Amino acid sequence: MGSVWGHSIKVSLFGESHGAAIGCVIDGLPPGVTVDFAAVDAQMARRAPGRYRFSTPRRESDRYEVLSGLFHGCTTGAPLAVVIRNENTRSEDYCQDVLRPGHADYTAWVKFKGFADFRGGGHFSGRLTAPLVFAGAVVRQILGEQGIVLGSRILRIYDVEDEAMAAEEIPALPPDAFPVKSPGAKERMQRAIEAAGEAGDSVGGVAECVALNVPAGLGEPFFHSLESHLAALMFSVPAVKGVEFGDGFALAGMLGSRANDPMFWEDATGACTEAGAGAVKFDSNHNGGINGGIANGQPLVCRVAVKPTPSVRLVQKTVDIRRGESVETALQGRHDPCIVPRALPVLEAVMALGIYDLFVHSRKG
Amino acid sequence: MGSVWGHSIKVSLFGESHGAAIGCVIDGLPPGVTVDFAAVDAQMARRAPGRYRFSTPRRESDRYEVLSGLFHGCTTGAPLAVVIRNENTRSEDYCQDVLRPGHADYTAWVKFKGFADFRGGGHFSGRLTAPLVFAGAVVRQILGEQGIVLGSRILRIYDVEDEAMAAEEIPALPPDAFPVKSPGAKERMQRAIEAAGEAGDSVGGVAECVALNVPAGLGEPFFHSLESHLAALMFSVPAVKGVEFGDGFALAGMLGSRANDPMFWEDATGACTEAGAGAVKFDSNHNGGINGGIANGQPLVCRVAVKPTPSVRLVQKTVDIRRGESVETALQGRHDPCIVPRALPVLEAVMALGIYDLFVHSRKG
Amino acid sequence: MGSVWGHSIKVSLFGESHGAAIGCVIDGLPPGVTVDFAAVDAQMARRAPGRYRFSTPRRESDRYEVLSGLFHGCTTGAPLAVVIRNENTRSEDYCQDVLRPGHADYTAWVKFKGFADFRGGGHFSGRLTAPLVFAGAVVRQILGEQGIVLGSRILRIYDVEDEAMAAEEIPALPPDAFPVKSPGAKERMQRAIEAAGEAGDSVGGVAECVALNVPAGLGEPFFHSLESHLAALMFSVPAVKGVEFGDGFALAGMLGSRANDPMFWEDATGACTEAGAGAVKFDSNHNGGINGGIANGQPLVCRVAVKPTPSVRLVQKTVDIRRGESVETALQGRHDPCIVPRALPVLEAVMALGIYDLFVHSRKG
Amino acid sequence: MGSVWGHSIKVSLFGESHGAAIGCVIDGLPPGVTVDFAAVDAQMARRAPGRYRFSTPRRESDRYEVLSGLFHGCTTGAPLAVVIRNENTRSEDYCQDVLRPGHADYTAWVKFKGFADFRGGGHFSGRLTAPLVFAGAVVRQILGEQGIVLGSRILRIYDVEDEAMAAEEIPALPPDAFPVKSPGAKERMQRAIEAAGEAGDSVGGVAECVALNVPAGLGEPFFHSLESHLAALMFSVPAVKGVEFGDGFALAGMLGSRANDPMFWEDATGACTEAGAGAVKFDSNHNGGINGGIANGQPLVCRVAVKPTPSVRLVQKTVDIRRGESVETALQGRHDPCIVPRALPVLEAVMALGIYDLFVHSRKG
Repeated sequence: MGSVWGHSIKVSLFGESHGAAIGCVIDGLPPGVTVDFAAVDAQMARRAPGRYRFSTPRRESDRYEVLSGLFHGCTTGAPLAVVIRNENTRSEDYCQDVLRPGHADYTAWVKFKGFADFRGGGHFSGRLTAPLVFAGAVVRQILGEQGIVLGSRILRIYDVEDEAMAAEEIPALPPDAFPVKSPGAKERMQRAIEAAGEAGDSVGGVAECVALNVPAGLGEPFFHSLESHLAALMFSVPAVKGVEFGDGFALAGMLGSRANDPMFWEDATGACTEAGAGAVKFDSNHNGGINGGIANGQPLVCRVAVKPTPSVRLVQKTVDIRRGESVETALQGRHDPCIVPRALPVLEAVMALGIYDLFVHSRKG
Repeated sequence: MGSVWGHSIKVSLFGESHGAAIGCVIDGLPPGVTVDFAAVDAQMARRAPGRYRFSTPRRESDRYEVLSGLFHGCTTGAPLAVVIRNENTRSEDYCQDVLRPGHADYTAWVKFKGFADFRGGGHFSGRLTAPLVFAGAVVRQILGEQGIVLGSRILRIYDVEDEAMAAEEIPALPPDAFPVKSPGAKERMQRAIEAAGEAGDSVGGVAECVALNVPAGLGEPFFHSLESHLAALMFSVPAVKGVEFGDGFALAGMLGSRANDPMFWEDATGACTEAGAGAVKFDSNHNGGINGGIANGQPLVCRVAVKPTPSVRLVQKTVDIRRGESVETALQGRHDPCIVPRALPVLEAVMALGIYDLFVHSRKG
Repeated sequence: MGSVWGHSIKVSLFGESHGAAIGCVIDGLPPGVTVDFAAVDAQMARRAPGRYRFSTPRRESDRYEVLSGLFHGCTTGAPLAVVIRNENTRSEDYCQDVLRPGHADYTAWVKFKGFADFRGGGHFSGRLTAPLVFAGAVVRQILGEQGIVLGSRILRIYDVEDEAMAAEEIPALPPDAFPVKSPGAKERMQRAIEAAGEAGDSVGGVAECVALNVPAGLGEPFFHSLESHLAALMFSVPAVKGVEFGDGFALAGMLGSRANDPMFWEDATGACTEAGAGAVKFDSNHNGGINGGIANGQPLVCRVAVKPTPSVRLVQKTVDIRRGESVETALQGRHDPCIVPRALPVLEAVMALGIYDLFVHSRKG
Repeated sequence: MGSVWGHSIKVSLFGESHGAAIGCVIDGLPPGVTVDFAAVDAQMARRAPGRYRFSTPRRESDRYEVLSGLFHGCTTGAPLAVVIRNENTRSEDYCQDVLRPGHADYTAWVKFKGFADFRGGGHFSGRLTAPLVFAGAVVRQILGEQGIVLGSRILRIYDVEDEAMAAEEIPALPPDAFPVKSPGAKERMQRAIEAAGEAGDSVGGVAECVALNVPAGLGEPFFHSLESHLAALMFSVPAVKGVEFGDGFALAGMLGSRANDPMFWEDATGACTEAGAGAVKFDSNHNGGINGGIANGQPLVCRVAVKPTPSVRLVQKTVDIRRGESVETALQGRHDPCIVPRALPVLEAVMALGIYDLFVHSRKG
């Protein structure tokens, strides 16, 4: 059940890093959407390797082919299947029996009883996020028609932090592999990555993702709260180890009188109708746009911790699973010493999928 | 879809804080489990109010009745339904039209178009966690028979932190509303709560939840990763605003060479069989027992940020949703100035449900 | 997973025939529906025993209590839970170890490893259809507001058949335990039942269920076709062994030129808009209102074969499962020699649930 | 949600008849299954056109490519994706605006608001059953390792019926497009098809599908009864309009004393253990191997009504949906005057999927 997701839409993800192809099937898209492929390509490009110094050189074209669900450039309402062929794979970079620490090599080996396609992480590879970005790009177009806008920035790389920033400004940041507010933050982040890369090591960071104009009322009580729904998606992205909404962990050290976002009535003449809901405004947003698991109309703010990519060239202790012994390993080849910049479009994509799924669901009834 | 959860088991939650009853239906339990009701009662007692100074005085008996799925004290394999009658509710404590800041009052009003049972938070009330604790208590008994043990401690209340502690020791902490390691931490936490309560304010904190002996291989790739599955459940608990696994957000500031938990082979004679998986051991547990979304056999470690309870007696700005105007409000009555102690059994319960659901799923095939 | 159903709504069924209670939780109802309990009671009464000669004397009050999801008589949007207490159960009528032929006694014993509550069929009892009728009554009220009307008639009891009848007339049949068109059919059917009952035997029959004004476009391709969706529900009703749509099995002997329902354009001025869809009309309805699994706007026609109730007083061969030997058995007590009249409201209820689930789903996007 | 199916496995179907490709993604297969591609090919060949007189000449190669989930010929445990390219499509055979009676043209047009890929029926085409046959062939191999064997025969074509036949013999019928028992039935069926085809008309029929050695206990109560589960799948196959189990509709005219299959204890020494379940045997199989929705260990017997293919060359009344007027149409090109022979492997495939899904589910707990 792991690789199928969604309620109002269903995304079925498939593929292995070094197999014939990766891709996904998206069921439940509305008919009649003229897909903006330039926008899709722009999102795919953000995720592609090789966009900044020290990133893995671009080996894959990530060229996708739509197999179904499109007719004359419009969605048909039937499942949209997209496939990305794998090319130029260098299996010899990867050792079969020596498990890479920090990767899914060991857990995949146990789970799939030794039958997993181990090459490059197989089905657990970060490469599988490419079809997710495709799917997210399609649904964020539909969300955009509803006024819902998504964006993200890098809040931190290793020990370099960006400064505080209004959520509303994040989607308007200029396109860049390192979207930040603070002057010089980008360069300092790059230096941190460069230093790690030169040492054969790697670094992680924190991404801040926002969605503006999410309608109040989105989300379901309890098990499908907006936070549950989005966190599950965020944690499905490889290397994510923490998710918080609003002030998140900092709320643990805050007084309730401060954590409660005060409300006021913006338009004194507003009738108390459902439409009048928009008249309720907030003085602050410590709760990240969500109360009781339901959107309150404020910017949805989510921060995501991304661990350092486990691919490092330094010598590490590990095991040879076939020979059943402890060994040392040092990964060869070029590896991205930091995947945070490339993670941003993935996190936005799954956020878009999560919001869209609940958005469609909430339109019914 | 919000109040039904699960794949291999299904939990269907119902009820409102001041309605006739709350409860849940659990479908998919195996037949033949002799339910240990003393253990269930012990978990229910941990969640009940009034267990420590400053907590809400106990108003509800939380006495549950099993309506189905049990025969001669054994599960039958058919759905187990449990109901808890609401008694002694004091609706007059709650104002209909003046929305309580920080609660779900406003979002519930928008979502349910003004028809929600607003009394005491209705379906969004923390009271709904009582049936969750019941369900968790039943499945943790089954997990226990597999050697899987759960526990939690309070890592932080407001500005008081407990010290570092081995995950393996947490389930063995003596039963207490404030399970901590550091001598004196309990008293300092209580004082922080007392100070907030006396000021008419409230505080939050961080809980650390662990599960020991979770078998390697548990979890599914991507959308149903162990982290996705557990985080969704954790975020369904009212007041939770952050979830992290292993070192979580701290991994963002760590080098990959340190974040990768080194592996070694414990038993040099071990054959490379599936059963031999147990021979792989780790030197550290920065990843909290999970790699690639799949359990690696180490202790599963999860930290959860709980915001200060939004019920404070201080004057707050808000709106009267019927009259359509800004007003001030100050909650009357007794309210818990900190719900972290009572949240622990709830977080353990949903963790048990999440692990059990994947555990049953992984037994197939 | 057996006792939870639905996509846009979720119905969670629980209870055993002779346990404490039966009931269900319905999640996903819209807020603001003022439930017409007189209409609910009328449906419940149709299913209750004792409505006609030879039926089991009424032992159960079938009095339901709504535990949640209602506030001031309106649905709140939160799960609606309903419970029906079991009373006056006579467990001594039922033998534990001697399996009743034709019932689920043996299969329940195997499935639940001997732990099932065997009394009166336990969770497999037809009594579990009472909460289904409740759920169906609530959603058919919502469907009624959309103009969708359901009805059914008895097409056959044993060897007595009703005559052909226009689908449109079926919902308008006067309320009766034996809704038929043909004069005298009711009496002949009753005589067939009486004869079987006096002989200690039982008879089955065929019900014809229709839904009018189902909007064209309802249903999903393939796995959730309208026929798949409704048939699965029909087959979940105890004793149902066959389901057909339109001319069903008779289509196997028909030429394509006749089976294809000819279309014509009713309004020559109609523009080719989506709304203009209503301008397409049909000359016949051999396909029962469904093409390619999707509603075409014609009456939805479904016929359901109900086997004779397996409870007969005649001596039958069976086994004693504890002693492990062949035995003979003859059921004691009063049993309904024909459940077809009581099955009608159940079949209409599940049809209503099935249509509503797809209806809500199709309103999205 | 229409094109994704399953609980323990998930099958995600995609494609349009004249689009780039069709295919499916199968998630949840166990790792380590060495796929027998000769057996897969044999099933695919049974569904391919052109296997008997009057069938559509073979235009499509139905050559499939596995994109993922296989490594060294073994399943990896990750999703298995298969794709079949469409070739040699003749779109000009199909008229866009004139709706073909009996097909899904009109309902697809309404459902998808005119955006459906109408060519050759698009996503509703019978061609989409090719990936289903692939999926079924893989899982029936796994079922075969458990001793579960599937088969089918043609019970009827138009007015030609095969004679009664023991369910146990059906899987052993020699491979043929017309598997029947009665000598000469094949030729009479072919003549009926030929006569229809020469008249520009078409005929339907009834298929009888069986599964042997299905373990007692398979299936879930109520909504996921074995009958519900299988019927939903059967009705997802294009042209199916009726499904019955055991004696099905004939049970409506039978006395209960006859419809109840008598049980006896085969081995007088058998202890009353769960394993001892196999000691219960039946004298007859009127219930088709299912009681209370759960398998009883007897042959599972299901009959499926297939309507005449709606593609006929005779002139028919219909509408031009763009111009909004009544027109006449006569389909050009070669069309299969009877799809029953090609439906057999499809029905077996979905039966295999349905049994497998419940089989895996029942292995848990």
